[in-house]
Amino acid sequence: MESVGNKTSQDLQLQMRLLGEAAKKAADKLTRINSEIKTEALFLAAEAIRNSVDSILAANAADMQKAAKRKLSNALLDRLALDNNRVSAMAEGIESIANLPDPVGVVVGEWDRPNGLKIQRVRVPLGVIGIIYESRPNVTSDAGALCLKSGNAVILRGGSEAALSNAAIHSCLVQGLANAGLPETAVQYMPTQDREAVGILLGDMSEFVDVIVPRGGKSLISRVQQDARIPVMGHLEGLCHTYVHAAADLDMARKVVVNAKMRRPGICGATETLLVDQAISDSHLQFLITDLIEAGCEVRGDEFTQKIDSRVKRAEDSDWNMEYLEAIISVRVVNGLDEAMEHIRQYGSGHTEAILTEDNLAAERFLNELDSAILLHNASTQYADGGEFGMGAEIGIATGRIHARGPVGAEQLTSYKYVVRGSGQTRPK
Amino acid sequence: MESVGNKTSQDLQLQMRLLGEAAKKAADKLTRINSEIKTEALFLAAEAIRNSVDSILAANAADMQKAAKRKLSNALLDRLALDNNRVSAMAEGIESIANLPDPVGVVVGEWDRPNGLKIQRVRVPLGVIGIIYESRPNVTSDAGALCLKSGNAVILRGGSEAALSNAAIHSCLVQGLANAGLPETAVQYMPTQDREAVGILLGDMSEFVDVIVPRGGKSLISRVQQDARIPVMGHLEGLCHTYVHAAADLDMARKVVVNAKMRRPGICGATETLLVDQAISDSHLQFLITDLIEAGCEVRGDEFTQKIDSRVKRAEDSDWNMEYLEAIISVRVVNGLDEAMEHIRQYGSGHTEAILTEDNLAAERFLNELDSAILLHNASTQYADGGEFGMGAEIGIATGRIHARGPVGAEQLTSYKYVVRGSGQTRPK
Repeated sequence: MESVGNKTSQDLQLQMRLLGEAAKKAADKLTRINSEIKTEALFLAAEAIRNSVDSILAANAADMQKAAKRKLSNALLDRLALDNNRVSAMAEGIESIANLPDPVGVVVGEWDRPNGLKIQRVRVPLGVIGIIYESRPNVTSDAGALCLKSGNAVILRGGSEAALSNAAIHSCLVQGLANAGLPETAVQYMPTQDREAVGILLGDMSEFVDVIVPRGGKSLISRVQQDARIPVMGHLEGLCHTYVHAAADLDMARKVVVNAKMRRPGICGATETLLVDQAISDSHLQFLITDLIEAGCEVRGDEFTQKIDSRVKRAEDSDWNMEYLEAIISVRVVNGLDEAMEHIRQYGSGHTEAILTEDNLAAERFLNELDSAILLHNASTQYADGGEFGMGAEIGIATGRIHARGPVGAEQLTSYKYVVRGSGQTRPK
Repeated sequence: MESVGNKTSQDLQLQMRLLGEAAKKAADKLTRINSEIKTEALFLAAEAIRNSVDSILAANAADMQKAAKRKLSNALLDRLALDNNRVSAMAEGIESIANLPDPVGVVVGEWDRPNGLKIQRVRVPLGVIGIIYESRPNVTSDAGALCLKSGNAVILRGGSEAALSNAAIHSCLVQGLANAGLPETAVQYMPTQDREAVGILLGDMSEFVDVIVPRGGKSLISRVQQDARIPVMGHLEGLCHTYVHAAADLDMARKVVVNAKMRRPGICGATETLLVDQAISDSHLQFLITDLIEAGCEVRGDEFTQKIDSRVKRAEDSDWNMEYLEAIISVRVVNGLDEAMEHIRQYGSGHTEAILTEDNLAAERFLNELDSAILLHNASTQYADGGEFGMGAEIGIATGRIHARGPVGAEQLTSYKYVVRGSGQTRPK
């Protein structure tokens, strides 16, 4: 943890206040900026990133060195590491966001009243967004670009382990803003690693910040939910289920289940628990287990599953609550659709669930009766992704129920206002 | 304040937990209930209210007696008082909510992906809503009915001064639920007036409650924002402005300004500050002031306004921040559209603002560049109302920026989920 130096708590309060005021001013300006300028700023930021590969990689190397000394896990080091390809991907990411349609100003509803009032519902930016995230430096460019696209000012706060990488990337975003004539404070990076500064951001800046988006592990999320006095757009865990129904096609199930867990076991849309219908446990389960194990997955099953294959470890009760985010899966045999849905209601995190079946009536019940953000029939849970939904880049998958649910892209980072045109109407008593 | 009796804090925690669990169970059931049953429950609740006029009025008389002893203000007593007409209006309100289209299950977006996945965005209930309100007993029936219509379970917490009235109305809602075969716990009323119970609702029930809707004065709202660990759909003050632009039609301005302030000075959409363009202060201002004063309004003006009419009291700086909610208005002369918008940005609460002008370019700038929930051209700010927008009954006007903004009706009390239909798709690496 970096030290606060000679800053007193009051200095920090003041510093954060200035940050907030600058963000609010920038947001006010962005509300009324036309699309072309935002797009130009994004292309210029992408260009700045391409031109700054060396300095970004140097900053990242310094972060990696420090991280190695702090003995961070390999998974964490992998998330932190940048190379030429990853830096190019960042620039491309910004360009693809630049090419998205501008969500702001779109009329999303329009109707006339009998008294002649003409009402429109028009999309507007949210205002100032605070994003608190961990590890992966590309969140800096993705989140900064998405917020700018949607006309929002943003205050970014990345993990201390990526401080130098994030600063280098952030300075490219600022170059893009400046070169397009936009306020540089439209995308700000928190100037201190002091944890107290996060407390101020969460607790004392409701005057300036409209919504907080936390992206990270459970401890970050729970701190944010505890301390925030500002609306939070939560991205909780993805404890996703795939249910192989009695009428599932075996070949499809084998293909989809392995993909749902093993394509990338570490993303929030990865399946963590496989539910297999008792009716097909004899015909399907052995294949599914074998496929998973051969793909390098550890399988932890209930008693029934263990009997099928001795390589299956015994699942503890706690396994049904586990978001492994690695090559481990829990497997349970259930007695029909209702028991499968009951399991999902009890243990799911409301993120993404899939049913595999050729029985459309069963599928429709699953899709209608469950209430996760994303429900799939005959497809891999790994599709839980804004890009795969055709929404462009995303800031994450919201698991809360208010405002946005599921992938949060540029459109989800907007609010709306009502514009009403009249001809002198007064409201009767 | 009622006493807690022999309840310990732990008892209260347990009691609230049971309340929350029951609400969650009811919400789970409501998610999957069909429209007809919800509609039937609402009609039966309206019928129960009509059949219970005597007991509701008796309960209200007891509340009024207690309130008179506590020397509550006349405004408060008026809000609390029920009579035959007001009880009938409650029943009619429930019936009009029953007749609204069901927002749940509506497909609000639908598209196909190149890989064949068919994606739908479908409206779902929010879940469990906690509503904390003051004084007016009809909020009990309005809010309860709106939540039920939108498939949500609700925990109601009204003001202690209306405890008996609210209980009588609540029991009618429960009769409606029971007679339609719905869980009675779909609409619960907090069983205690203990203030600590509100603290528990706000702070310790995130497991059960999805969103808190506070309806009331500043002190209630600020308590909720300070203590809530659950998303809040805020209904802050309505510090609404009407700006009479240089190109305003005098007759229209006179008619609209008086309506905007005086039709009902106590509603959140009432204009609190009148801005008049310097260019027309000679021709228009005297008429506007005279009309307001003759309608019984106290006028507090800037130096300029005072010179026009000696009956105008001097506005203090604090007046620009005042939501009077009574027959008082502050008046300021501004030098053009930009100064008017600057004033509104500085002092407005983001609720509702109107411009009166025959200059459409000026009007469009006002509508586009300001960012309040509702912006009107040539119409009274008193139209800030869900019913007037054609949205049916409302729970209030949201002034926050996330989730719902402006009138919160049945549709705004919903979330959405994604339903994805495939044919065995797996996500490529």
